[in-house]
Amino acid sequence: MSRSDLPSHTCTIARASAQVGDEWTLLIMRELFLGTRRFDDFLRLTSMSSHLLSQRLRKLETQGVIRREPYSERPPRHEYRLTEKGLDLWTVIIALKQWGDRWLSTEDTPVQIMHKVCGNVVRPHMICPDCGERMGAHDAEAKISEPFQMERQAVRRAP
Amino acid sequence: MSRSDLPSHTCTIARASAQVGDEWTLLIMRELFLGTRRFDDFLRLTSMSSHLLSQRLRKLETQGVIRREPYSERPPRHEYRLTEKGLDLWTVIIALKQWGDRWLSTEDTPVQIMHKVCGNVVRPHMICPDCGERMGAHDAEAKISEPFQMERQAVRRAP
Repeated sequence: MSRSDLPSHTCTIARASAQVGDEWTLLIMRELFLGTRRFDDFLRLTSMSSHLLSQRLRKLETQGVIRREPYSERPPRHEYRLTEKGLDLWTVIIALKQWGDRWLSTEDTPVQIMHKVCGNVVRPHMICPDCGERMGAHDAEAKISEPFQMERQAVRRAP
Repeated sequence: MSRSDLPSHTCTIARASAQVGDEWTLLIMRELFLGTRRFDDFLRLTSMSSHLLSQRLRKLETQGVIRREPYSERPPRHEYRLTEKGLDLWTVIIALKQWGDRWLSTEDTPVQIMHKVCGNVVRPHMICPDCGERMGAHDAEAKISEPFQMERQAVRRAP
């Protein structure tokens, strides 16, 4: 399987990984959530090369994760903003951040999250919407759909 | 900046991305959470090349995300299991899955999540632990620490 086969997979994790599972893309997403919007700022704040940054921004725009918005007509200039699809990656970025804070850092977290509704600095966590209990790997069981199960069995049996 | 500079960044998202922000690593993590443990099964179920798979598994082991556990002495064989650090990536994988389910799929989700405590199939979501309200990008504000803010300003001002 080549990288380009990933999006066709039944599994939505494989598809999602093909879109944003890349460390440079994740750095760009971090910047977007911190309010960065202009090419030169992305360039400096991520230390990416101009070529790499252009390529990743174009990919994100094609996928509908970001959109370009003009902010000057003469000279023509635009900035980048998250679409709803992009904003919906917030949970992924926060989950990654909290994992990094817990396992890869000895200092205080460099970015705290304030909940605008209650005004507190918090560490959001995942809950079960039915019973309201906190959820993690130990409390969850994966139930694989029949088509995906069959796809997996076929691959396992293939010579 | 080269890839190898990423881990030294103050930002824990950059560090976390350097460890697991890679589509193949995310596919391996998916398999681990689905219960896959043996090299040949990873090979078939991810369609990765043997070389690529070995390399990613070695990296994950070095980082302490997975550990090897012997299951046969003659011939010597081992399987791969998630450590606590690895299990703690569950939230990242679930967030990515749910984003993929919402934005990249037209069918029902290939993998449902059952909460063992209450027995219901659920879509876990993030809440504010203080007020208990559901949280997303629109309700959150990032507060950047002083050292990280200074690091960012220095980069922005650099000639």
